[in-house]
Amino acid sequence: MSGKEGKDDEGSRVKLESLANGIIKDIKSGKNPKFVTAARKRSNIVFDAKNGYLRLGKSVEERDFINVAQSKRFMQTIAIAAKCHKFVKENLHTTIRGLFYQLKYSLGEDVDENIFNEQSESNPLIEDLEAGLDVTRENLNLNANRKGVLAGNMTVLDRFGDEMVEIDCSKQGRSGWAIPSDVDNDIKFVNVKAKYCIVVEKDALWQRLNEDGFWKKENAILITPQGQAARGTRRLIRKLADLGIPIYVFTDSDAWGWYIYWTIKTGSINLAYMGGEVATPEARFIGVTMSDLDKYDFLNKLTMNASEVDLKRAQEMLSYEWIKRSKEWVRELERMIKSKKKLEQDALQGPRLTFVGDYIREKIKNKDFLP
Amino acid sequence: MSGKEGKDDEGSRVKLESLANGIIKDIKSGKNPKFVTAARKRSNIVFDAKNGYLRLGKSVEERDFINVAQSKRFMQTIAIAAKCHKFVKENLHTTIRGLFYQLKYSLGEDVDENIFNEQSESNPLIEDLEAGLDVTRENLNLNANRKGVLAGNMTVLDRFGDEMVEIDCSKQGRSGWAIPSDVDNDIKFVNVKAKYCIVVEKDALWQRLNEDGFWKKENAILITPQGQAARGTRRLIRKLADLGIPIYVFTDSDAWGWYIYWTIKTGSINLAYMGGEVATPEARFIGVTMSDLDKYDFLNKLTMNASEVDLKRAQEMLSYEWIKRSKEWVRELERMIKSKKKLEQDALQGPRLTFVGDYIREKIKNKDFLP
Repeated sequence: MSGKEGKDDEGSRVKLESLANGIIKDIKSGKNPKFVTAARKRSNIVFDAKNGYLRLGKSVEERDFINVAQSKRFMQTIAIAAKCHKFVKENLHTTIRGLFYQLKYSLGEDVDENIFNEQSESNPLIEDLEAGLDVTRENLNLNANRKGVLAGNMTVLDRFGDEMVEIDCSKQGRSGWAIPSDVDNDIKFVNVKAKYCIVVEKDALWQRLNEDGFWKKENAILITPQGQAARGTRRLIRKLADLGIPIYVFTDSDAWGWYIYWTIKTGSINLAYMGGEVATPEARFIGVTMSDLDKYDFLNKLTMNASEVDLKRAQEMLSYEWIKRSKEWVRELERMIKSKKKLEQDALQGPRLTFVGDYIREKIKNKDFLP
Repeated sequence: MSGKEGKDDEGSRVKLESLANGIIKDIKSGKNPKFVTAARKRSNIVFDAKNGYLRLGKSVEERDFINVAQSKRFMQTIAIAAKCHKFVKENLHTTIRGLFYQLKYSLGEDVDENIFNEQSESNPLIEDLEAGLDVTRENLNLNANRKGVLAGNMTVLDRFGDEMVEIDCSKQGRSGWAIPSDVDNDIKFVNVKAKYCIVVEKDALWQRLNEDGFWKKENAILITPQGQAARGTRRLIRKLADLGIPIYVFTDSDAWGWYIYWTIKTGSINLAYMGGEVATPEARFIGVTMSDLDKYDFLNKLTMNASEVDLKRAQEMLSYEWIKRSKEWVRELERMIKSKKKLEQDALQGPRLTFVGDYIREKIKNKDFLP
């Protein structure tokens, strides 16, 4: 298992305490206390070609206590660290919104001016802490938004209070198992039996395939991120890939669908500080593709007009180095730009509802996917 | 159990066939075939004060085949009915997007001009069918969007292929059971043991309460619609109320939170044609309320500024007859308008994360809720 497997709550508690102890030591020895974190600005985001994902470069940022421009941010960062330390010790979780209210509540009593007036002030500081201490917000007991559903031959052991509950992902009916925001702490995946994992952009198509028993017939794991994948879903896909399970992504052939795929594969600019933990460079793109129009004639009457956003985004993607080097992707993007047409995964239901599964089967059988 | 309990797939198949047979009969006897449906325009939406929900009035609309202005819509409606009949016979489900593509596919072959160019053309016609035949789209095998999660002492028997799977909603860990879009067909709720059901606007607060084991300690059913409640979640709340379980709703004290509550309680203008099936007039509003500011002093420093939308919406709500008659609601709305402040449910985490559950407990103990 790659990523921060060892970085559990205990690890983050130790890191928060050593941050605090360092500051106390600095103050006692008359030094200017400071907090150092990796710079998350655009110019410090690099595509790691060797490993195939976006990560931060070497540039760092410092928050000094004795610096008029930085002392407020320094204090805010330490206040956040103190709250997270409390949450970890209490073994209770909240969201960054809950954290914001705790800060507003407790600082409001002693300090005349509210230290945080808007949550937009506290959010980037949490990312500072994540990057600076090399912990995830999940390990600071901060839940991120969750989204995404899974079905397949796999069992989840999840903590609930003092017991571990067993959730059989092959016995969740039409619902599927809802992927939590944290898939690293107090949770285990056992009996994972699958030839491959298919990630389906839209919940509607997931339901279609689930109703057909697709994952059961194929011995596959069927995931939908329900649009752009949340952190928990990206981490889970990474973990499945670590188990040697091939990952196939199935989205619309449009700007949004491609963005979903590339985010799963290479990570995203926003989460570049998490690098390889939320990226799955092994993932392959199964479709729908513009070249499906040559393979499946009926799709030609089911295209939609590409929007301005689609066309602009396609043009932009052509400038990315990790896309430029793939002939297949360049061909896809150029075909959309030229034809001004796009294709949705839902269109595969045109001839018959069950065609969607046949399409995936055929693609996988013929190894017909994009890098 | 109220609502369309008898209106299963079989029932909708019979209704679709009798619609078709009626049209064939009309044509054979030289009559002008027509389709009659309840008018869904604003002027035909009434608040049923006796029952406490929004429903359609008596006015109807006709689509005539021999009428230049209506014949296209007539043909489109029949095409949709034919597709739904096929889905019901095949026992396969899709979405209205999938239906749209099937129409585009099959009509494109025989007819020169595409009958449906945009999905916006087919959506209102599906509602025509629902209202005209008195069936739900779920019974026409069309899945609506799903959203919403549940935990509690309750077992779901859900069909998956040929078997019924048993899902224990008390053993779903941090995930909860994902509420499907259809909670009426091929699904059963057994061993429902709960003193009450609490519906929590935000997933973040649901997770907070779930982590505390709130539903277990209280023997409650804990639902989050994850924002505005989807059709499936509204139907499920209605079904729980039918079992005699009191329903309490817990949202932000702002325009959006109030809208979520009133939609659960009285139904919505968009779904007025479904009337009492998606409304739970028995529901009570637990908070957060503007008057909580008098009861919990700390909340006064955790208010946020009301937005223009909040203030406008509050003013609008004061004009609704079903709100006007409640002194408590008028007081709430006027207090927001006067103070220009609002309050979020997340703010209850200010003093300590576990306060949220204590707040609900105290409210229920003191029967401190709004009608």
